[in-house]
Amino acid sequence: MQLGMIGLGKMGGNMRERIRRAGHEVIGYDLAPDVRDVDTLEELVSGLSAPRTVWVMVPAGKPTRETVSQLGELLEPGDLVIDGGNSHFKDDALHDAELAEKGIGYVDCGVSGGIWGLENGYGLMCGGRPEHVEQAMPIFDALRPEGPREEGFVHAGDVGAGHYAKMVHNGIEYGLMHAYAEGFELLTAKEIVKDVKGCFQAWSRGTVVRSWLLDLLVKALEETPGLEGVSEYTTDSGEGRWTVQEAIENAVPMPVISAALFARFNSRQENSPAMQAVAALRGQFGGHDVKM
Amino acid sequence: MQLGMIGLGKMGGNMRERIRRAGHEVIGYDLAPDVRDVDTLEELVSGLSAPRTVWVMVPAGKPTRETVSQLGELLEPGDLVIDGGNSHFKDDALHDAELAEKGIGYVDCGVSGGIWGLENGYGLMCGGRPEHVEQAMPIFDALRPEGPREEGFVHAGDVGAGHYAKMVHNGIEYGLMHAYAEGFELLTAKEIVKDVKGCFQAWSRGTVVRSWLLDLLVKALEETPGLEGVSEYTTDSGEGRWTVQEAIENAVPMPVISAALFARFNSRQENSPAMQAVAALRGQFGGHDVKM
Amino acid sequence: MQLGMIGLGKMGGNMRERIRRAGHEVIGYDLAPDVRDVDTLEELVSGLSAPRTVWVMVPAGKPTRETVSQLGELLEPGDLVIDGGNSHFKDDALHDAELAEKGIGYVDCGVSGGIWGLENGYGLMCGGRPEHVEQAMPIFDALRPEGPREEGFVHAGDVGAGHYAKMVHNGIEYGLMHAYAEGFELLTAKEIVKDVKGCFQAWSRGTVVRSWLLDLLVKALEETPGLEGVSEYTTDSGEGRWTVQEAIENAVPMPVISAALFARFNSRQENSPAMQAVAALRGQFGGHDVKM
Amino acid sequence: MQLGMIGLGKMGGNMRERIRRAGHEVIGYDLAPDVRDVDTLEELVSGLSAPRTVWVMVPAGKPTRETVSQLGELLEPGDLVIDGGNSHFKDDALHDAELAEKGIGYVDCGVSGGIWGLENGYGLMCGGRPEHVEQAMPIFDALRPEGPREEGFVHAGDVGAGHYAKMVHNGIEYGLMHAYAEGFELLTAKEIVKDVKGCFQAWSRGTVVRSWLLDLLVKALEETPGLEGVSEYTTDSGEGRWTVQEAIENAVPMPVISAALFARFNSRQENSPAMQAVAALRGQFGGHDVKM
Repeated sequence: MQLGMIGLGKMGGNMRERIRRAGHEVIGYDLAPDVRDVDTLEELVSGLSAPRTVWVMVPAGKPTRETVSQLGELLEPGDLVIDGGNSHFKDDALHDAELAEKGIGYVDCGVSGGIWGLENGYGLMCGGRPEHVEQAMPIFDALRPEGPREEGFVHAGDVGAGHYAKMVHNGIEYGLMHAYAEGFELLTAKEIVKDVKGCFQAWSRGTVVRSWLLDLLVKALEETPGLEGVSEYTTDSGEGRWTVQEAIENAVPMPVISAALFARFNSRQENSPAMQAVAALRGQFGGHDVKM
Repeated sequence: MQLGMIGLGKMGGNMRERIRRAGHEVIGYDLAPDVRDVDTLEELVSGLSAPRTVWVMVPAGKPTRETVSQLGELLEPGDLVIDGGNSHFKDDALHDAELAEKGIGYVDCGVSGGIWGLENGYGLMCGGRPEHVEQAMPIFDALRPEGPREEGFVHAGDVGAGHYAKMVHNGIEYGLMHAYAEGFELLTAKEIVKDVKGCFQAWSRGTVVRSWLLDLLVKALEETPGLEGVSEYTTDSGEGRWTVQEAIENAVPMPVISAALFARFNSRQENSPAMQAVAALRGQFGGHDVKM
Repeated sequence: MQLGMIGLGKMGGNMRERIRRAGHEVIGYDLAPDVRDVDTLEELVSGLSAPRTVWVMVPAGKPTRETVSQLGELLEPGDLVIDGGNSHFKDDALHDAELAEKGIGYVDCGVSGGIWGLENGYGLMCGGRPEHVEQAMPIFDALRPEGPREEGFVHAGDVGAGHYAKMVHNGIEYGLMHAYAEGFELLTAKEIVKDVKGCFQAWSRGTVVRSWLLDLLVKALEETPGLEGVSEYTTDSGEGRWTVQEAIENAVPMPVISAALFARFNSRQENSPAMQAVAALRGQFGGHDVKM
Repeated sequence: MQLGMIGLGKMGGNMRERIRRAGHEVIGYDLAPDVRDVDTLEELVSGLSAPRTVWVMVPAGKPTRETVSQLGELLEPGDLVIDGGNSHFKDDALHDAELAEKGIGYVDCGVSGGIWGLENGYGLMCGGRPEHVEQAMPIFDALRPEGPREEGFVHAGDVGAGHYAKMVHNGIEYGLMHAYAEGFELLTAKEIVKDVKGCFQAWSRGTVVRSWLLDLLVKALEETPGLEGVSEYTTDSGEGRWTVQEAIENAVPMPVISAALFARFNSRQENSPAMQAVAALRGQFGGHDVKM
């Protein structure tokens, strides 16, 4: 089938390539002239036969919201917009309402896989009405990993459910990474343990903790023994924050994922104001020395 | 080679079988007459040619300590004892010292794999002197999963390092499981998400969170949709507790694994005394109703 | 001076009384006819001489927003509205903008003290422009506890800063209560400790942990020894949630207060879905029994 | 009455002074010649009439254990030893058993109050047999704050219960301090809040969070506005660690106090190995930049 793809960065560019390899026609647009197939959204739309399907893969927030609005002007009833970016699920309701007024369908699709997706395929989580999801199924099948569809694709629920599932996926990812990381730190701290990398590698097969993230940690430890010189500084995309905020709105206890999130905040602080306060308090009541 | 194996329960029995399949001779002893090959430890020892290797696979604590002491009486210089149970790593130093006095070698070996180990192989983490580890290598090779040795086996360090690595492995396991569990709870709580099992299954390939534990969770959700009727009550083996206690002794922050551990404690409480105190306090200052 | 007070519930009613005791004239309005002084907002406004000051003490959210809008219709330039309820600080910006268009001043004021405030005075935290705060100072002085003004009153900052400070105050309160609660649970669990209430009481004077909350816990333990029969079920007002959500928005690590919040969520669950997932997982890989 | 006091440091020296002010006779011994009243333990013992009471106020661990053993040699049946240091409660059972063999009584006594104790009195928590506690009551009454005995003294339970209660007291202290500290950090981070010190000060009277620690934080903020230049580096005495380890041994969930403890560990790390691992992992799967 035909697909319009807007946004050809690290993710979108690879996705265009994977969809093409599956035999579909993709017309790509990007702000950067050197990667795009057409020079305007108008051209992109006029290059597709109705009913059109357009995949939006631009940064979440304003860029996505503006792109969706523009498509609302350019597309026709029966066409379909898929937001494959990392939008907050609350934006999906706005997008859907805006497009539905014009008879244009909307599907939100969380996409996992990072830079490995081109070769391994992308995990896909969709939200929307069944007929809209069905309309784009050939594209989903092209993007997802080989194997049974349900092991790399889900129609998770109503509009927003795709981004919601992806958000939770990323929240889980924070928790998983931090669990390995705490184990790494403890093994490193213990003198009787001489081969920390070897421990992680020995867990690669047959153990309960085996996973793709474990394999990546082994790879990182092979490339940089002991992680010497790696900075602790870790940014966080919005999705970890949204996950915990959603947990709070829904009264779901989330101690593990929030701890992993807070540790990222901490990694970016030169000096923790909270610990300054604790240190100052101890100085007050105990005559403990306060370092200045 | 020949091996004596003491303890033929869920783990030991399967391990005897896997070692035999690899072509080694195993003489097994257990308190239960129907599973054992010989009726006494003396018989087991006299059935092996020197230098002997004896694998102890009995419950940690007193049973293991007593078995090691008995072997110290029965074995000869040059023989080797392997403790494959879930002993605390501090016990290993005691076992090693006791046996070393008699010229008997000692290796501690953490074993991961549960009921799946017979077919998939067991992840192995050893501690001890190189010559002792080498002596038992054919057995380790029989037990570990197919593939490169280093992906299912590690000589982690000095005596105790094997159990230490296994302890940390289990601690990590707590954290991983709880990260998935928090994601499960949040997806379940959100109305727009209609197919929670489908979400987890869609992460099976191509996503960052794919793992063996994820596959098991999908399996559990297939067997018991929505986990209806599953009790939250969750026990904890010692190793999660030891991991956090070691973290504290070594000044390693461990918020994720400890949160997972505390959640298990909580799951076994009818009524949380801490929350009773909070409820009582609120009643005192706010005139909030306290449920009785 | 004169004050109009809207909302004469548990808090507002006592505050009217405390302000009157200080010699001010208060005209009160409430939906409930039996407690109010006038029957309509119009009557309330016409009973006050310009420049008027009206204190809004109704539930946060829609009731407060509607009341502020109504006052915007009834009041005149130079008048002042104070929102003393538990509004989210983001609402304050909306209220202020709406009233400023009409030349009406706005101050947000967080109020602490609960049912004890009538006698002890109320802790007050204000946000707004200096001239507006100054206009209401006689009322603030009437409400706050005896003693130096700065020990019971603060002009915390711009519009919204008062409710923000109150929100953080409540978040801290969650953490403080839970710290005592954890200590209570541990003392109760330890057999050698025979007099748990006595321990808390012995901390009343001279120790580092002495506080008003400690005194209340002692009182609760005197009234209900061992807290026998007190339910763990604990609700949460919005402010604990807002505090953690604000921490996340501002990249502030908040492990203690969030843990206290999550424990409240937990206290209201019959069965924790997360722990069901953990239990189910353990059943899958370990052959551990899963309680049904 | 007469008392022998061993250890005249920051705590012991002030306690000798406070006991003397209450009219008792104290013979003090210390390693430092300039502060002691007698030059040997023998001299101290011979200066007291039977039945003697000797208060040990030396560092926990080896110094205390050795002092108790020496006293076991020097004292007579009917005499009494009080350990007022910060011993682990498990040491108390050893001390008691050693002394009981010789007919000497033993009481453990946790002491709170820091450098303020001389003037304000010390909070006291005792463990031991009733007759031993009774024997030393005049000393306890001298040390504790003015007011009803039960508001500054408790006979908490059996031998060890005094140090146990003090340990929990310190654990609670960690949690309380961190709750205020998190609030401080959030208020500081929020631009609309202009007077953070003023907020804390305004909570001094009438609010739910008022406490001695709050007063100290206000004092610290007065001395060092914004805590500018205060280092986050915070040590931890053993008692916070012991509290969490005891919680784990007794299956008591302790998320708040453990979070406060972990934050202290974190404050002393230049680079968090756990966060290095997270950063390295993100680099592997996401092509995210890793800072070196």
